Amino acid sequence: MRMAELSRASGIPVATIKFYLRERLLPPGERTGPNQSRYGEEHLRRLRLIRGLLEVGGLSVATARGVIDAVDSELPLAHSFGVAQRAVSAHIDPGDIDAEALARVDRLIGGWQVSGDNPGRLAAARVLETFAALGQQDEGSWLPRYAAAALLVAEADLDQVGARGSREAMAETVVIGTVLGDALFSGLRRAAQEHVSTLRHPVPSEPDRPPTRE
Amino acid sequence: MRMAELSRASGIPVATIKFYLRERLLPPGERTGPNQSRYGEEHLRRLRLIRGLLEVGGLSVATARGVIDAVDSELPLAHSFGVAQRAVSAHIDPGDIDAEALARVDRLIGGWQVSGDNPGRLAAARVLETFAALGQQDEGSWLPRYAAAALLVAEADLDQVGARGSREAMAETVVIGTVLGDALFSGLRRAAQEHVSTLRHPVPSEPDRPPTRE
Repeated sequence: MRMAELSRASGIPVATIKFYLRERLLPPGERTGPNQSRYGEEHLRRLRLIRGLLEVGGLSVATARGVIDAVDSELPLAHSFGVAQRAVSAHIDPGDIDAEALARVDRLIGGWQVSGDNPGRLAAARVLETFAALGQQDEGSWLPRYAAAALLVAEADLDQVGARGSREAMAETVVIGTVLGDALFSGLRRAAQEHVSTLRHPVPSEPDRPPTRE
Repeated sequence: MRMAELSRASGIPVATIKFYLRERLLPPGERTGPNQSRYGEEHLRRLRLIRGLLEVGGLSVATARGVIDAVDSELPLAHSFGVAQRAVSAHIDPGDIDAEALARVDRLIGGWQVSGDNPGRLAAARVLETFAALGQQDEGSWLPRYAAAALLVAEADLDQVGARGSREAMAETVVIGTVLGDALFSGLRRAAQEHVSTLRHPVPSEPDRPPTRE
């Protein structure tokens, strides 16, 4: 299809598509004339991925490009995870983290095969460091239950990846799952918090929902 | 203690503490002279909370103020959750979300007591809408396993809240858990993904970690 048709099919303005081409988020079409190219289904699919990463995932253009490069590369799948994880995680220098917090994370994920610079390990240690500074003790195995739930979700993620046909589709699922899975889980967690909180701490009566902050 | 001591004890520069006072993140100290105030342990504790919300939680000053107001208010606990959730969630207009995606979320969390405008329900629907646009089908009950894990985490969260002594400490835990729990879970999930991925898709040999994106 031509650029105008690609725009119509995707609902994305031509100027935006041209921007994605310039930013190398979208691969060029097939040249059919000095000022014309032809685009295929794979371009339409890629446009949807770009939109998902930028708008729902909240990634910057540069980060989205790194993630898309990982989808297109021939890296082994375990590496695609690493690239997607690094792309969407803030860089944390292990030297900046309290050794005690790192040791606590390592006890928490004891037995998992995780490299020392896994961005998730460092991010979790940063949170534990903050919990300690705020006097949040782990009562009733709060943290091990987080780790157990994270393992359940990661197994579901890998099953989902494994069910895809091609290497590219698998890498795409890795990327989509890494970027959007965080948003999905935190959304479901908030809904579950309201549910469990309502069961345990029923609100007396009348105002049947919290006042909205102005 | 005096301002200078509060700064030393917290490791936060005097200018920053004054900024937090002006922004009403930190309550004023007890006036002891025309240009002097005395601060107590509760100020030190509050400074740690502010730091956690701003630096590790990544909240804006305005959002942090809303969250801290919820800690200080006399709202029932179920309402503190609502306020904390709304403060850290992007506002989504239910009218902007595909009815089919909302119906899918509601099937996923069927049986939970969740209000229609729970920000997590709407955020999860937004993700499902994007999954559908990207052709991500749910294979092997990917999504129900997310919901089950979210319920485990929410129960752990509420146990943690319930183990705190005072109402203020409970509200503080609600806020800390809501803001930092997302970061903790996504960190643990990334570590678990590396673990499960390594078990299932062992990388042939030599390069024993993914190349870092420049």
